[in-house]
Amino acid sequence: MTLPNFDELIEKYAATILRAGINQQPGETTIIQADIDQAPLVRALSAQAWALGARDVIVRWGDAEIGKSRLENASDEVLGTTGYAAAAFDDFCEEVNPNLIFVKSSGPSELAGVDIEKIKISNRTAEAAQPKRRKLTGAGKMPWIIVGAASENWAHDVFPDLPVSEAVDKLWEAIFFTSRVSFGDPLKNWEDHAYKLGKTADLLTSYQFDHILYRAEGTDLKIGLGGDRIWISAGGMSGASKKEYIPNIPTEEIFTTPDFHRVDGVVRATKPLNYSGNLVDDFELTFKDGRVVDYKARVGQEVLASIIEADEGAHFLGELALVPIDTPINESGLLFLMTLFDENASNHLAVGRGYPAGVIAGPDMNDEELREAGVNYSSMHVDFMVGSDKTDIDGVTADGEVVPIFRNGKWTDEIANQL
Amino acid sequence: MTLPNFDELIEKYAATILRAGINQQPGETTIIQADIDQAPLVRALSAQAWALGARDVIVRWGDAEIGKSRLENASDEVLGTTGYAAAAFDDFCEEVNPNLIFVKSSGPSELAGVDIEKIKISNRTAEAAQPKRRKLTGAGKMPWIIVGAASENWAHDVFPDLPVSEAVDKLWEAIFFTSRVSFGDPLKNWEDHAYKLGKTADLLTSYQFDHILYRAEGTDLKIGLGGDRIWISAGGMSGASKKEYIPNIPTEEIFTTPDFHRVDGVVRATKPLNYSGNLVDDFELTFKDGRVVDYKARVGQEVLASIIEADEGAHFLGELALVPIDTPINESGLLFLMTLFDENASNHLAVGRGYPAGVIAGPDMNDEELREAGVNYSSMHVDFMVGSDKTDIDGVTADGEVVPIFRNGKWTDEIANQL
Repeated sequence: MTLPNFDELIEKYAATILRAGINQQPGETTIIQADIDQAPLVRALSAQAWALGARDVIVRWGDAEIGKSRLENASDEVLGTTGYAAAAFDDFCEEVNPNLIFVKSSGPSELAGVDIEKIKISNRTAEAAQPKRRKLTGAGKMPWIIVGAASENWAHDVFPDLPVSEAVDKLWEAIFFTSRVSFGDPLKNWEDHAYKLGKTADLLTSYQFDHILYRAEGTDLKIGLGGDRIWISAGGMSGASKKEYIPNIPTEEIFTTPDFHRVDGVVRATKPLNYSGNLVDDFELTFKDGRVVDYKARVGQEVLASIIEADEGAHFLGELALVPIDTPINESGLLFLMTLFDENASNHLAVGRGYPAGVIAGPDMNDEELREAGVNYSSMHVDFMVGSDKTDIDGVTADGEVVPIFRNGKWTDEIANQL
Repeated sequence: MTLPNFDELIEKYAATILRAGINQQPGETTIIQADIDQAPLVRALSAQAWALGARDVIVRWGDAEIGKSRLENASDEVLGTTGYAAAAFDDFCEEVNPNLIFVKSSGPSELAGVDIEKIKISNRTAEAAQPKRRKLTGAGKMPWIIVGAASENWAHDVFPDLPVSEAVDKLWEAIFFTSRVSFGDPLKNWEDHAYKLGKTADLLTSYQFDHILYRAEGTDLKIGLGGDRIWISAGGMSGASKKEYIPNIPTEEIFTTPDFHRVDGVVRATKPLNYSGNLVDDFELTFKDGRVVDYKARVGQEVLASIIEADEGAHFLGELALVPIDTPINESGLLFLMTLFDENASNHLAVGRGYPAGVIAGPDMNDEELREAGVNYSSMHVDFMVGSDKTDIDGVTADGEVVPIFRNGKWTDEIANQL
């Protein structure tokens, strides 16, 4: 690593993840999932978590190269079988309610050339492997956070014309900048930012919109909400959890879970989608009564099909998220080719699993009640970007009041003036 | 890594481990335990295992720095609790009977400064965590292998006066040489070597010695065997396993499990003992009716105490191993400060757990029957070196015939001429 102040920034980044992000408290167990080439960050996280009084710190390591060779060589049966530790991990999460830090460092080319069917089987197995953990994190009951870390593979995807070590440095710089770590006081930055996100979410929730009207180039979509939605910002999620935490760094979004039965119209993606290392680009989806009835992609049609056709629930929306275009990520001008970053440069939607936490009392509902409340269920949850400087959004209340939310990709004055 | 042919040697080393060592067969699952800084070796092992038709390849990663910070920070209660995946792993081993490759890369200074009590608790927890797996590997029913890999920490311990990267290169060179990888055809080397080890073991077994007389400077020890012992060489263990395999690379030893009730006299170690990163040096043990009744070390007395006093079984012998002084390891002139290597430079004994496979029908005996047959049980199994060029060994049969086995640290002609 040649970035001159890399060690200092990694320490600041780890502090931001643990204190502003997962909100590490004494006596809490923290689990870190990361690839082995992220050892500097993981070691800093581990040391600082202990210093903050962690009860235990557990690292679940992966390796991109070994993961790829497994996909290339293992039989469908093996890929379809959950790992020996999966059920035990699931039980552990239910019993201990640990913090869970996911360090993501995979670029879209990581699995290039791997049979998409193999990836599908493997992803389905992984998604199904932790039902309790997924329910806990999905409902916001178990604190979790996703953060980025520059790998050689990802850095090369983002900066294909640079020598790899330079690309890694550039990508780390961009991560530190967009994560508000490399300027000012990172913890103060996050205190201010989280406060603003939280206020905006509360304001949107207070309207109790019946539906959202979403218009942009190639997009004309009506998204039903029902009168019981909560708008969530990642800036200080508390919901059903024992404490506040920020589940994404960076995060700029304010989101809720739509009524998956009430989505109609067409929506056009504005950025490519990196799905498990495979690219989908230039694509649109058509919805009728909530269900995707048509989809087409200029690039990666078969990948898009593997998402939508994964199960019935993948044909419906699970998430609606608002992000203005004036964020550090968008200002960086980079296409990160990683959803964590690119979704926070842009409004986005997700097909698949919805968020119980997006509904009042949702975290305490059983599966049937969640379904009745319009919270989608699927083994999938795949975000795609739909924001641009052409986006206009209105919220419509049950008695027909129309509230302008976005104009030309930014919060309207009507919203901004109330914060 | 600056060793010019490192990549080529790593590939040869991986091939040696998989083909000469664990004897990877199509359809077998292989598990690799290694630290994250051994990625080049682990990736080569993984790729070659797949190429040999593995059903699955599973890597269990560790990290020395994170492991140390856990020992320094976690409470006794946390260190005393088995990890969430331990029982699942144990069941998996019983169900699948996988190959298990341990890649060892810890130098003695790795845990320097860590409270020995913490290490003791942690080791006891780890030892107790996999009763089924230990029983399977101990009885030779599940194929396993231990191999070495140069870490910066270990290399610095072995070559403290060299710059670290140079030390790592030198240590890799020594590993490749002593593992018979860097000269000739590694697979042919191992075929010849394993054949010779196997013949010697069979010859010793055929004598059915009642006991062994072991004499050297500071050592005068009688070790009972009973008439039902099998001498095992690591060169082509089959025992109760589904196939032959070599559980240590390098390996030079021929060993059996003593009758733990019948050991008398005094034995003086000839090399330091690296126990979980802590050094014991210049030490001797006194046995009466099998039990250690006195022990003293000039260096690391408290570490030696933590071994012997770990449980009752740690007071008794579990292993007796013969290694002549004319081996590549001894010829290398290096003190590796790792038991895997140093024990194969030298005759050694182990306190603690014995090997059921060292007794005829042992693998099928229950715990009580094993105890009656004199196979020691303990949570510990700790080797220490007792060989030198002064060592004379005789085997004594039940009818009093005395067979000279070693003179001045080498096989006697009487033995060598029968191979």
